[in-house]
Amino acid sequence: MSAAARRVVVVAGLGKGSGTGASTARVFAKAGYSVALIARGADTVNSLAQELNSAGGDAAPFSVESYSTQDISSVWRSIRAKYSAPNYIIAAAIFNIAQGFWKPFLDLTPEEVQQSLQINVEAAFAFSREAILTFKENEIYEPTGKRGALIYTGATASLRGNTTTSAFAAGKFGLRALSQSLNKEFGKDNIHVAHAIIDGGILTERYIQYRPELAKDPDARLSPDSIANAYLYLVNQDRSAWTWELDLRPAHEKW
Amino acid sequence: MSAAARRVVVVAGLGKGSGTGASTARVFAKAGYSVALIARGADTVNSLAQELNSAGGDAAPFSVESYSTQDISSVWRSIRAKYSAPNYIIAAAIFNIAQGFWKPFLDLTPEEVQQSLQINVEAAFAFSREAILTFKENEIYEPTGKRGALIYTGATASLRGNTTTSAFAAGKFGLRALSQSLNKEFGKDNIHVAHAIIDGGILTERYIQYRPELAKDPDARLSPDSIANAYLYLVNQDRSAWTWELDLRPAHEKW
Amino acid sequence: MSAAARRVVVVAGLGKGSGTGASTARVFAKAGYSVALIARGADTVNSLAQELNSAGGDAAPFSVESYSTQDISSVWRSIRAKYSAPNYIIAAAIFNIAQGFWKPFLDLTPEEVQQSLQINVEAAFAFSREAILTFKENEIYEPTGKRGALIYTGATASLRGNTTTSAFAAGKFGLRALSQSLNKEFGKDNIHVAHAIIDGGILTERYIQYRPELAKDPDARLSPDSIANAYLYLVNQDRSAWTWELDLRPAHEKW
Amino acid sequence: MSAAARRVVVVAGLGKGSGTGASTARVFAKAGYSVALIARGADTVNSLAQELNSAGGDAAPFSVESYSTQDISSVWRSIRAKYSAPNYIIAAAIFNIAQGFWKPFLDLTPEEVQQSLQINVEAAFAFSREAILTFKENEIYEPTGKRGALIYTGATASLRGNTTTSAFAAGKFGLRALSQSLNKEFGKDNIHVAHAIIDGGILTERYIQYRPELAKDPDARLSPDSIANAYLYLVNQDRSAWTWELDLRPAHEKW
Repeated sequence: MSAAARRVVVVAGLGKGSGTGASTARVFAKAGYSVALIARGADTVNSLAQELNSAGGDAAPFSVESYSTQDISSVWRSIRAKYSAPNYIIAAAIFNIAQGFWKPFLDLTPEEVQQSLQINVEAAFAFSREAILTFKENEIYEPTGKRGALIYTGATASLRGNTTTSAFAAGKFGLRALSQSLNKEFGKDNIHVAHAIIDGGILTERYIQYRPELAKDPDARLSPDSIANAYLYLVNQDRSAWTWELDLRPAHEKW
Repeated sequence: MSAAARRVVVVAGLGKGSGTGASTARVFAKAGYSVALIARGADTVNSLAQELNSAGGDAAPFSVESYSTQDISSVWRSIRAKYSAPNYIIAAAIFNIAQGFWKPFLDLTPEEVQQSLQINVEAAFAFSREAILTFKENEIYEPTGKRGALIYTGATASLRGNTTTSAFAAGKFGLRALSQSLNKEFGKDNIHVAHAIIDGGILTERYIQYRPELAKDPDARLSPDSIANAYLYLVNQDRSAWTWELDLRPAHEKW
Repeated sequence: MSAAARRVVVVAGLGKGSGTGASTARVFAKAGYSVALIARGADTVNSLAQELNSAGGDAAPFSVESYSTQDISSVWRSIRAKYSAPNYIIAAAIFNIAQGFWKPFLDLTPEEVQQSLQINVEAAFAFSREAILTFKENEIYEPTGKRGALIYTGATASLRGNTTTSAFAAGKFGLRALSQSLNKEFGKDNIHVAHAIIDGGILTERYIQYRPELAKDPDARLSPDSIANAYLYLVNQDRSAWTWELDLRPAHEKW
Repeated sequence: MSAAARRVVVVAGLGKGSGTGASTARVFAKAGYSVALIARGADTVNSLAQELNSAGGDAAPFSVESYSTQDISSVWRSIRAKYSAPNYIIAAAIFNIAQGFWKPFLDLTPEEVQQSLQINVEAAFAFSREAILTFKENEIYEPTGKRGALIYTGATASLRGNTTTSAFAAGKFGLRALSQSLNKEFGKDNIHVAHAIIDGGILTERYIQYRPELAKDPDARLSPDSIANAYLYLVNQDRSAWTWELDLRPAHEKW
């Protein structure tokens, strides 16, 4: 890698633009990364890219119509075309795509089950494939000894099924399995794969709107910026002692 | 439930007819259950049903073309039609359907990923829905205090992803999440949901054929009959102290 | 082993005589085992031995002054002296000794911490040593292919620390580590080591006395007899597919 | 807390001065912390304190004769006396004390079992009590929203017992239980308790001496400095999203 190459992070999954994905984009932009933003629909990626660029960052929007394998592969082709050597090096990829299906088991339709597996797991396989293939082309980055870092956002449902989470937990368990498998398979290539268990509610705009009283309690909900700082720490870990999995929860969480 | 009603077990997934599914059918038949056999293709279900009936059992074949949600729902309609009150009570359902995809991550096709999730997870959702709906109609069975028991066959890959198991582990983790969610959701209805971790190789005909030297070591591989005995024990547990998950492995397994 | 040898179970830890230990003694006596009862103080062991003998069983009391390593080694010498070949074979050992210390961390005295580790862990090491040494002298018991079975009673606190369980959980986690280590170490000798997670309250006399309203709900608490049946099942598992760990909880437990 | 107060870290357990404990001391010293060093015997603490002070740090040795509860309480009194308000604030405490007992179960003496529990668990209870009592007196530190951080060094044996680790794993499981209990109990007081699973060999001087060929492989063993960086990150996490547990292992570890 040329010393002059700019490091790029690919962030997929932005929700309404006020959660973990958006904070990750902001934190990495502030740390000097160029940011490729993937989300469904043009609005969120465009406005977040604009915000980051206005603040002096270097961000670009990559909207997709869906999180199908085909759309994810296609958008990565565009990302690789834009961020090519010797000026850029795609160094980190954050899979923050998720969709919850909290409902009693017997109320779930077959389509919802399939959709939960498609978005929470299949999309992760497609995203991971592109990230791993990209990282394998990278040279070792000396400060960390790594070719790249791939991070997944997990949830309480990654560790525990519960009365209304059968479809969501099946997806998040599956994602966790993928992350562990890839950590073991690509460690030898110095590609770092990690999984963060977000064990609690996240302070998003939607959350503030609907639960203003809870949103005021700084200890009751996770700050997405702090989650993003954890992701930056993981990306910066060197390969002599890296983390597959960590949990993140607010101080006052009863768990 | 009439005292005279015959208890029925539904066993889905029979492999080549010499593994866990077939042994489960034999053990439950010997214990007095009528057995409904579900598998892809007519050959395995027909020959196993014939074997069980010749030995004095009461078994019937229910072949399916695929493990799609539609085919699984459809075959359960046939099963419910055949085993109806007051002569029969469908008391147990064993989900033994699985398909492994052991290969390096980058060799997996999108179709294989989707297929692993479809067979290992979606089919389980469909099967479980039919089993739960059926059990909810049952009266409490006095000896156990339960309306029914639903058991899933797990694997080492239910607990650990590894270098060649990303697709299979994603499916088996997902299945485990489903089993835990349903245990928690339907315990209050006295429906028992359990998950068995089969942590080792199983002594099947295929295994004996390909690894005759290992197959001779009684301690190196799991006997499918012993797994089946564990399933019968789980079905017989009363609701005051039932098990969600147990592991099963051979004595000499290094784990 | 002579075919005529009577199988013996050693049960340690009887509480007030109405819980898991006592039920285990009753269930194994009914299944034809001679029963050696270990507990602190003569009263409980004597009255339970008398009860079992009056019911046609063969039980003997072995009271200890404490659960020190020395007292446990000493009482096992007495047990081995009484139950010797060719008339007896000590085939199973149940470690049901436990002491809870539920209090806020800062209220714990150093003595309580030490006592929790002594009773919940050290006593288990001493008991296990005697059991393993005894089993190693046994011949293989053909129906199971095993030389002996050693079972530990675990608890919710074996898997999770919580706000008032630091001392108790430290002990129960330690016991679980011991059980897993011994399962792995002595599997090759065909000695079966298992661990049961009792995840819920147990219906003991003391419980009935203090919580009569809850005790009436058959689904809210574990029946000790059902736990004992699980232990008998574990002892009867053959070595081709045995269980290290299972959980046991009542149907209506929210977990 | 006065803005001018210097932050202090207490590091207990230094091995031969080239492992996790010593690296932690160096990393925190470089980050501006005063360092209180606890270890058995004067040599290691004195030479490390001297090294840190020569490098411009502020370190002090606190040798103990043993890791008994009494000695640990006593040394904390000395530490609190030296690092008192308004000049100092004891902000972090690292429990790195451990002693392995890797041997077959039947070769363990009762004294070794007791010693493993004493050093790996009881000492941690004593150390934690002093740390928690100290932190409770602290004001909230604004950058993190915390009163203090207490970190324990875990090991592979914290998660898995194995054929030669019964005594060590019993201790490390117990330590993990303590850490989880305290995380849950003192989160509401904004005291952060965390546990790091060090899953692999650590590159210490002793290791280099005995396995020089392996020591040359930068990917085969954990660098203690990288572990120390993880500890510093944990101490710096803010209370909106903190970690109870993370694993750390080298890139090429087969796990």
